[in-house]
Amino acid sequence: MTKVDVREKVLSENERVATANREVFGRADVLVLNLVSSPGSGKTTLLEGTLDRLPKTVRALVIEGDVCTARDLDRVKARGGTGVQINTGGGCHLSAQMVADVLGQLDLASADVVFIENVGNLICPSTYDLGEDAKVVLLATTEGDDKPMKYPAVFHESSLAVLNKVDLLPHLAYDIGKVEKEIAVLNPRCEIMRVSALRGDGMDAWISWIAARLADKRRRES
Amino acid sequence: MTKVDVREKVLSENERVATANREVFGRADVLVLNLVSSPGSGKTTLLEGTLDRLPKTVRALVIEGDVCTARDLDRVKARGGTGVQINTGGGCHLSAQMVADVLGQLDLASADVVFIENVGNLICPSTYDLGEDAKVVLLATTEGDDKPMKYPAVFHESSLAVLNKVDLLPHLAYDIGKVEKEIAVLNPRCEIMRVSALRGDGMDAWISWIAARLADKRRRES
Repeated sequence: MTKVDVREKVLSENERVATANREVFGRADVLVLNLVSSPGSGKTTLLEGTLDRLPKTVRALVIEGDVCTARDLDRVKARGGTGVQINTGGGCHLSAQMVADVLGQLDLASADVVFIENVGNLICPSTYDLGEDAKVVLLATTEGDDKPMKYPAVFHESSLAVLNKVDLLPHLAYDIGKVEKEIAVLNPRCEIMRVSALRGDGMDAWISWIAARLADKRRRES
Repeated sequence: MTKVDVREKVLSENERVATANREVFGRADVLVLNLVSSPGSGKTTLLEGTLDRLPKTVRALVIEGDVCTARDLDRVKARGGTGVQINTGGGCHLSAQMVADVLGQLDLASADVVFIENVGNLICPSTYDLGEDAKVVLLATTEGDDKPMKYPAVFHESSLAVLNKVDLLPHLAYDIGKVEKEIAVLNPRCEIMRVSALRGDGMDAWISWIAARLADKRRRES
């Protein structure tokens, strides 16, 4: 087999497992969001702020993906969250199989939303369906305003782009309007939010977006 | 062939081409530095500041790696730099073959240093030798102070860690000493510099480091 054949086989096998995951999530009636970004764009901080703000009627579980360490899961637990850690041991993205392997550790029946925090990588996770309802890409203002066109695939695949760390805008040369325009060119259906997960800006809109997606999923399935 | 077999074959073929690249660089008597980091950690800004500051006796060439666009090469050229752009078209790292394919476009004989700016990715580029003399990892303060242990491979492989964007430290909760300690645990031979490529902090030390590595390479080869 050539490298290309193997890649196609890996992706097609991943798609098969992702479909099975999606059926499991559907039966449990949970909304699943796959958070993707570069390292340090604020995925875990967004989760911390989300756990603080979600209404009690929206019960959350977290699947944490990382190359090494359980640091992110420790932060989630310190915030009262529940979840599992996946360590890829060098792998640069989560796969559907990695997610399938931990589903037995989660009480999906008593959850409403599952957040999957992918490995910090703006490229590879965009290719791998995990069985989620939507991908959410985070892009920090500190990463510079030239990024969407340089890393287009993840914006093609995402339903929402969270432009995080807007609290640092006064200290940066960053044209947020330019970033929003580039994302709109790459994917006109991708919604965009300006957020500071640390300071709280935009978090109400994010929580409302989650609640609306959950309600929408349940309406379609009922 | 299994996925593992193919990966081993790809890496062993990469090693063969990297060795050939290293011989080409050796014959041209150039120092080659492979810059690796997350998207937006400041690799191109470091190159801009480097081109401004390198003494005239150290002539530089740049190989720019990116998924899409020639934005980074445009910035290098706007600074008076010379180089070539590699677009991986979705690929998450440069390979030795991609570098080999552009060497004919570079006048290595009239250069002293070649900077290779890798694709923005803190994971995959650490596995691929391009024929460089040293890997230099950049980590921006804005990425958070928990990163080395979460992304250990690139620190194992690097000769120098540039902790960039120290100009933003007054606005961040960031323990730079903790980061330095973690890097030292992962790789005691990895040198560490505190830099603001944008404001200029630490740039003299970085230029001196390049000059010392170049002198050292030429001494060993003469």
